[in-house]
Amino acid sequence: MDTTVNKTTNLHGIISMEDLMKHWQGHRNLTRRVIEAFPEDAIFKHTIGGMRPFSEMVMELLGIAGPGIKEIATGVSAPLNEHFEHGNKKSKILELWDASTNEINMYWDKIKPEQFQDRIKLFGQYDGTVYSSICYFIDNEIHHRGQAYVYLRSLGIEPPAFYER
Amino acid sequence: MDTTVNKTTNLHGIISMEDLMKHWQGHRNLTRRVIEAFPEDAIFKHTIGGMRPFSEMVMELLGIAGPGIKEIATGVSAPLNEHFEHGNKKSKILELWDASTNEINMYWDKIKPEQFQDRIKLFGQYDGTVYSSICYFIDNEIHHRGQAYVYLRSLGIEPPAFYER
Repeated sequence: MDTTVNKTTNLHGIISMEDLMKHWQGHRNLTRRVIEAFPEDAIFKHTIGGMRPFSEMVMELLGIAGPGIKEIATGVSAPLNEHFEHGNKKSKILELWDASTNEINMYWDKIKPEQFQDRIKLFGQYDGTVYSSICYFIDNEIHHRGQAYVYLRSLGIEPPAFYER
Repeated sequence: MDTTVNKTTNLHGIISMEDLMKHWQGHRNLTRRVIEAFPEDAIFKHTIGGMRPFSEMVMELLGIAGPGIKEIATGVSAPLNEHFEHGNKKSKILELWDASTNEINMYWDKIKPEQFQDRIKLFGQYDGTVYSSICYFIDNEIHHRGQAYVYLRSLGIEPPAFYER
C-alpha cells in the first residue's frame, strides 16, 4: 500500500484546506486594495470597450464567493444573486467585501476535507466538484481584478503590486 | 490517529497533482485561444495606459511556467529569462506556447507529491513553497489574460468565454 495516499478519500493530496484558504485570503486582500485604489466615481462609471464598470464585476464576485461557500458548507442551494445595495458609495462596496470575507471564513470551517472531490451543482446550475468550484471562485476574482488593473492604468493610477498579498 | 491524514507528509490534502495539472491545462488552453483571438499586429503593438502589449506579457508567462516547473523537477536553478525570439509573428508565439506546454507536461511527471510543501527559492530569488509557486504561475497567467480581455474588447473583439477551458 502506498502510505502517501489519503486512506479515506484515496486521494494523494498536495494542498491542504488551510493552504487554499490562506492563498485565497491573500487574493481577497489584494482585491480589497484594488477597490480602494479606484476614485469614488470611477469604480461605478469607468469602462473600456463596452465592459462593465469594476463595481459591477465586484457585485458578481460577491454573489459567487460567500453564497458559494455557504452552499458547499450547508448543502442548501439558492439561485445566484449578483445585486447588492451599494448606493454608489465605495465605502459600501468595501463593507460588502468585508462581510463576504467573514461569511467565507465562517462557512469554511464547516466544510470537511473529504468533501473536496464531491460533485455538486452550485446555485442549482453549475456542475463541478467542490475543489473545481472553489478554484473557479478564486480564478474569477483574479480574472476581473486583472481587468481592473487596466482600468486603473487607463486612469493614470498605479495598481497595488500583484505579488503582494 | 486521523486516517485521513497523509502519513508521509502529515498533510490533509484536498487536491491531487492530477487535479492541479488538469486545472492548469484548462487555463493554458484558454490562454492559447486568447493569443489566437488577437489580430497579428495588435498582439505586438496594442496597449492601454502605458502597459505592455500582450505579446510581452506572454513572454513573461513563457519565462516563468516551463522553466519554473523544470527547476522544481530537477532542483537546478537558472536566472529568470523573459526574452524569446518571436520575430513579431503570432504563429511563433503560439509555437512557443505549445513548446512551453510540452515542457510543463514533461517535467510535471518528474515532480513527486511529497515535494509540494517543500520550501524553494525559485530562479534563485523567489522564496515560497512548491505549491505556492505553482499557484503563482497559474494566477499570474489568469491575471495577464484578464488584461488581454480588456485589450481585445477595446479592439471590438469578443474574447473566448472565461468559463470554457
